[in-house]
Amino acid sequence: MDARSSDAPPAPDAPIRLEPTEPESIDLGAARSALAVLLPADRVSLDPAVLAEYAHDDAEWADFAESVAVVFAESVDDVVAVVRFAAASGLSVVPRGAGTGLSGGANASAGAIVLSLERMTRIVEVNPAERYAVAEAGVINDDLRQAVAAVGLWYPPDPASYRISTIGGNAATNAGGICCVKYGVTRDYVLGMRVVLADGSVVDLGRRTAKGVTGYDLTALMIGSEGTLGIIVELILKLLPLAGREERAVVGSFGSLEDAGRAVAAITSAGVVPSALELIDRTCIEAVDAWQHLGLPHGADTMLLATVDEPGAVGAERADAVAALMRDAGALGVERGASPEEVDRLFLARRLAYPSLERLGPVLTEDICVPRSAVPEMLARIQRAAADHDVVIANIAHAGDGNLHPLIIAPEGDDAAKARAKLAFDRIVDDCRALGGTVTGEHGVGLLKLPGAREELGERVLGMHRAIKDALDPRGVLNPGKAFPE
Amino acid sequence: MDARSSDAPPAPDAPIRLEPTEPESIDLGAARSALAVLLPADRVSLDPAVLAEYAHDDAEWADFAESVAVVFAESVDDVVAVVRFAAASGLSVVPRGAGTGLSGGANASAGAIVLSLERMTRIVEVNPAERYAVAEAGVINDDLRQAVAAVGLWYPPDPASYRISTIGGNAATNAGGICCVKYGVTRDYVLGMRVVLADGSVVDLGRRTAKGVTGYDLTALMIGSEGTLGIIVELILKLLPLAGREERAVVGSFGSLEDAGRAVAAITSAGVVPSALELIDRTCIEAVDAWQHLGLPHGADTMLLATVDEPGAVGAERADAVAALMRDAGALGVERGASPEEVDRLFLARRLAYPSLERLGPVLTEDICVPRSAVPEMLARIQRAAADHDVVIANIAHAGDGNLHPLIIAPEGDDAAKARAKLAFDRIVDDCRALGGTVTGEHGVGLLKLPGAREELGERVLGMHRAIKDALDPRGVLNPGKAFPE
Repeated sequence: MDARSSDAPPAPDAPIRLEPTEPESIDLGAARSALAVLLPADRVSLDPAVLAEYAHDDAEWADFAESVAVVFAESVDDVVAVVRFAAASGLSVVPRGAGTGLSGGANASAGAIVLSLERMTRIVEVNPAERYAVAEAGVINDDLRQAVAAVGLWYPPDPASYRISTIGGNAATNAGGICCVKYGVTRDYVLGMRVVLADGSVVDLGRRTAKGVTGYDLTALMIGSEGTLGIIVELILKLLPLAGREERAVVGSFGSLEDAGRAVAAITSAGVVPSALELIDRTCIEAVDAWQHLGLPHGADTMLLATVDEPGAVGAERADAVAALMRDAGALGVERGASPEEVDRLFLARRLAYPSLERLGPVLTEDICVPRSAVPEMLARIQRAAADHDVVIANIAHAGDGNLHPLIIAPEGDDAAKARAKLAFDRIVDDCRALGGTVTGEHGVGLLKLPGAREELGERVLGMHRAIKDALDPRGVLNPGKAFPE
Repeated sequence: MDARSSDAPPAPDAPIRLEPTEPESIDLGAARSALAVLLPADRVSLDPAVLAEYAHDDAEWADFAESVAVVFAESVDDVVAVVRFAAASGLSVVPRGAGTGLSGGANASAGAIVLSLERMTRIVEVNPAERYAVAEAGVINDDLRQAVAAVGLWYPPDPASYRISTIGGNAATNAGGICCVKYGVTRDYVLGMRVVLADGSVVDLGRRTAKGVTGYDLTALMIGSEGTLGIIVELILKLLPLAGREERAVVGSFGSLEDAGRAVAAITSAGVVPSALELIDRTCIEAVDAWQHLGLPHGADTMLLATVDEPGAVGAERADAVAALMRDAGALGVERGASPEEVDRLFLARRLAYPSLERLGPVLTEDICVPRSAVPEMLARIQRAAADHDVVIANIAHAGDGNLHPLIIAPEGDDAAKARAKLAFDRIVDDCRALGGTVTGEHGVGLLKLPGAREELGERVLGMHRAIKDALDPRGVLNPGKAFPE
């Protein structure tokens, strides 16, 4: 299956292109010829158009270079062959799922072979008795969801890209999503994995049993390591029963970000754990309405979109409680829905927010996570950053987690606006840190958050990163320069 | 607070004692004198009785040696001082919480300073708005539970030792417990930690926010590493709301292990996720009844003890479903209880099983985890191992997770029985592996499971362990010889 299927969002506008700096000792021509012999012709591309398409992920403005080649692995053996070849040739390997990353983690660097896993789409096993699935890394998240739903099981992790992103990429970045406020992130659903290491050896990490503590948790170490410690080729994923949930949506419209922020804090403090608690601001609402004419609430500055999923009377009570807390916080109106169709309708504005904003120009996507109680203050600081730097910033937030996505929009071709956007981006990161937050809640460090990661981790913890990277990839073959600042 | 409080179980019978093999290059007398100068007198013990008490944890028959000294750290500075001193003197450090481990992970090795964290009992912060707590490593699990319950919050991890074990030890071993079948294990509740590394430097890992993916997941790497990569001195723990749960107990008595095993499989397959699903066998039932005269079900070979915790009608329905599934699987009788007192009464036999068995003689505690559907077959194999090796084996199981604790009991002073018990132990590990299981579900590798871990992990994954250990502790200062086979 092609990861870039018809569900894919519009291609991002071309980011700034860096000239590749080829390591002088490498004969690229010879390397390309050797690769063409190493693998069947249909698995290696040297086509400049393909190289360009696979030179970067969906992160705007992150650096990238032209790669040596793009390899479309069809098996673990293909991955092993590429890693061994790269290690022997002084090249590096940039692994890649569907390329939907938003931090540049899959961007090509000079002297790198881009290794796409998108053709490794086999669902090896779905085991209802043990509630796990085994699937190759290139399986699309939504394909896995549908395959396990067919036997009454549920794979919760739901990044916004779930219709087009791969489970391998999800694991490599420890992708979050909307349901994590109640159900956790990708790492909470990975029991084990098959990994190709930097020397081309293949290891099985983790387990298939419900519990297990044999040795170090190397599965967890791989998750979120962005392909810098190993290339995940297969995953063992924990599943939940599909039955027993009944989603109810409660959507409030607010006159100010502050009122919506107060509602978030009140819902959390009341001990209600919603299965989603999302926020979109006025800029999002207007962009969606301008595009889709949904008739969103007049006068609303901010919408707060919640679901609860307990079945029966308890779910109805909790939905009542959420609605009451929204009203107490000053909601202008509260809409509710209990059928799947109504829930979908009420969440439509949330789902359309990102593509609506992309119509306005290249989007620089922030991904900060602050303490839940700091959400109103952080949103206020983002508004000040927008004003001070004269840029448009829209806000989509997984508000229940404190995970905010300020989307900084610069008009196409306006380099001055881009420069101002970058300043706003850095300032938001600084503000997030000042409020006790983390520089990336779910997108990963990639390239865009390297400076923020340096600040957040500090020299000693970075030293641990370097020591582990050197221990598992002494030659720096795997995705060099990503995940943490060297 | 003293970790060995009055709730502590009876002290285990003295295990086989190894003669310490002191590294020749170390002048123990000089090291002891230096330690006495380094720290206040009440924090260092050279008393042979204290050294003997702190030479091992609760693992029967795991090797141990006399330590250089026992240090009772009262602060992070104390821990740093001991680690630096050990590194400079060619000694090692064996960190220790309450010493309730069951794999020998806290057993002293020759040339080691035993470093107890039991005096570091400060609960630094409980944050209801963000639902986390910050606490020192020596805080007793139950003390933390009570402190957070006072503000309406719940810390789920509940190892059987929760009244006496420390949260630091729980994290170092990734302790499980009864509620993990629904709520996960210790690692699922650790957001971040403060750690003293092998060079004495202090680092903060992880975060306080609900989500965060900055850099490698070093928090997860530390969890379950048994103090071999760093000494956890403080934890940031995720909490859940205390409200909204209503426990209902459903306890079935069965005429055979096979019938009980079928009930477990049926409950899992039906998509019901109980909040506990425990099993005790005839040997346990008889030992409990012989001691406490509870009047447990006559003719029962096996008891299956379940709770569900959804509130209201949904919980009542799920309890009905569990009871019906038990009856369909051939339960001789099913008892139910909905009040906290009734739940406690129905679970009393489970709570008393381990101390009841300890009255019969030294207990060698197994800790295997097999696929849930293999529970009946594994229980049958355990019975055959008991018969073939002429030993008494009782079974306590977290059946809903496939996590079994065969308890091998040898009469006091019977060395031949101990030797047969060891053979049965090894055979059970082999059978577990043959059924696709893991050699330790929740107790950790420590010393007892080193041979099993070697089989399970294989040479390449062990190579990764060694590389990471060498990277973070190049001199082998921290708990050498534990967690994975060198």
